[in-house]
Amino acid sequence: MTYEEARAQFPVFERWAYMNAGTMGPLSRATLTAMDEQIRHDQELGRGGSDWFTSVIALREQVRTQLAALLGTAPERVALTFSTTDGCNIVLSGLDLTADDEVITTDQEHFGLTGPVYASGARVVITAADEDAILGAITPRTKLIATCEVLWTTGRRLDLHRVKAESGLPVLVDGAQSAGAIAVEVGELDFYTVSAQKWLCAPEPTGALYVRDPESVRIVAPSYSSQSSYELSGAFVPKEGAARFDSGRTGMPTLVGLVAALDTHPAWRYERAVEMAASCAELLGEHVEIVTVPGHSTLVSFRPPGDPAELVQELAARSVIVRELPGRNLVRVSCGWWTSSDDLERVVDALRR
Amino acid sequence: MTYEEARAQFPVFERWAYMNAGTMGPLSRATLTAMDEQIRHDQELGRGGSDWFTSVIALREQVRTQLAALLGTAPERVALTFSTTDGCNIVLSGLDLTADDEVITTDQEHFGLTGPVYASGARVVITAADEDAILGAITPRTKLIATCEVLWTTGRRLDLHRVKAESGLPVLVDGAQSAGAIAVEVGELDFYTVSAQKWLCAPEPTGALYVRDPESVRIVAPSYSSQSSYELSGAFVPKEGAARFDSGRTGMPTLVGLVAALDTHPAWRYERAVEMAASCAELLGEHVEIVTVPGHSTLVSFRPPGDPAELVQELAARSVIVRELPGRNLVRVSCGWWTSSDDLERVVDALRR
Repeated sequence: MTYEEARAQFPVFERWAYMNAGTMGPLSRATLTAMDEQIRHDQELGRGGSDWFTSVIALREQVRTQLAALLGTAPERVALTFSTTDGCNIVLSGLDLTADDEVITTDQEHFGLTGPVYASGARVVITAADEDAILGAITPRTKLIATCEVLWTTGRRLDLHRVKAESGLPVLVDGAQSAGAIAVEVGELDFYTVSAQKWLCAPEPTGALYVRDPESVRIVAPSYSSQSSYELSGAFVPKEGAARFDSGRTGMPTLVGLVAALDTHPAWRYERAVEMAASCAELLGEHVEIVTVPGHSTLVSFRPPGDPAELVQELAARSVIVRELPGRNLVRVSCGWWTSSDDLERVVDALRR
Repeated sequence: MTYEEARAQFPVFERWAYMNAGTMGPLSRATLTAMDEQIRHDQELGRGGSDWFTSVIALREQVRTQLAALLGTAPERVALTFSTTDGCNIVLSGLDLTADDEVITTDQEHFGLTGPVYASGARVVITAADEDAILGAITPRTKLIATCEVLWTTGRRLDLHRVKAESGLPVLVDGAQSAGAIAVEVGELDFYTVSAQKWLCAPEPTGALYVRDPESVRIVAPSYSSQSSYELSGAFVPKEGAARFDSGRTGMPTLVGLVAALDTHPAWRYERAVEMAASCAELLGEHVEIVTVPGHSTLVSFRPPGDPAELVQELAARSVIVRELPGRNLVRVSCGWWTSSDDLERVVDALRR
């Protein structure tokens, strides 16, 4: 697949310099077609026959296998979830932490991670978003380190493999800005979330959760998908592996849309995305203060001279879609493998005015 | 809307005597069109601008209002969830029950209710599915009564208003086979779930949870939608009312599909559905043993002479879609307001052979 062919899959680029995959990725024609055909099928043939259920189950396993490959792991360790928030809740509620336990997180996290951390009841220890700061905050009470691999604010990439190796503690990774954006290997990490609607360009609500040791987490919110057998009391034998944490059934149109979305990404995806982000940082750096370390990720954040919300509005009026980060005084540009030099020029051009 | 017009909204009836709304309802043309248009819109204009988010929020509040009306309550007491299972998990995990507490449930429940009951860690007390049996099982340790209003197995309707009035205990209702099927009033009940993909004919995953006193349940799995403000630690001020329990974002195509689905139901929906079920029970009763009490609900269950799974397959070969209930030796026919006399004759005809 050439670059031109690959980019042409996404109609949104015909209209806009759409640079907000960090919130929601572009949707391809193939994704639309797959969803459309499934809705038509469900409407004409119903959603209740045994063939239909067999096809749902087969498709779920296919998706699990594809998402496992994306994380460099086996499908047995991957749960299908609705979102990164959902994945974080599965882990945090299932660890049975108490007020005597500590969870280390950073000052650069999304509520999708910190909300679940806080709700766990453990003491929340906040550090700078830096490997040394995280490692320095460990005490005998630390039960979990919970942070992003790529910070959603500045785009900085943390070396969490180092944090894991040096701490030996359980590490939960919010992968919302890394999985699908940059090459990811779960390695020795314990938990890793995927938000498929962002860099994987899937419909909502879709995601995944890698769990290294499924036996180590209690199932707090079981669904029919969690069990391999059950009694009248609800007592159940959990499914083998991470499937026990599956968050109920995604609709079939969404599921086939996810499958189609996973097929839109070319082999050279990761290299080109990081290149375009570096190029974006270089070009914008002549006009605004860039806070992103080059080469870390596919996000480029900058501190605008004036009000970030106003700037985002002005850019939108010029067909450039980026976002502001509330409370951080930052504007964030998301560069995908699909981003063109023309997109970058449009951002610079709009900023120059 | 005449009966013919109302029924003609659903293409599946052109092909099949589709009688499995207790699992998944039929999908209307309007639902398909709405979803299709939204997917096209999202694909062409992206999913990341502020107008898009504003429209998501507005649509969620519209849906909340419509589902509240369906339950005879105010939108402030309704959370938008993914399913009945999801709603049961929100309640059961949020009550902080211990092994010293007891939850009463019946021997006729779906795993979507009993799984969460069991996972709560409370002692599960199982009674016959009968008001007196439930009331008779109450002890000083009983913290919750959790059951269906309409049993998914036999279609029997329990008088849970009586159970509530006589027990004074918190009552969680699995409304999967009642909300949208029969007229529901939450009255003094404490928790009531809605599965919108069944009798409301919506796409998956969609549902709702009525919570009489939102302050009484801890938020175990917060999402961005749960909070009205938050700090770096994840500490948050919950939204007013039941919206604090919202289960993250449903995709926009699914949400517009739900809105369209809610508009497909005529004013005479409940009367006709129960009439058709009574008629179905009468016709089938000449050939098989009916276990459903007439007039209770829209479900008709019978004990087939042979293997239920085989019978369901044979009926499917004759374009009649019903389901078996695993482990119960029952076949279940779902009659909606849309069910025709011809549908019923096709079931009888297929059974006769």
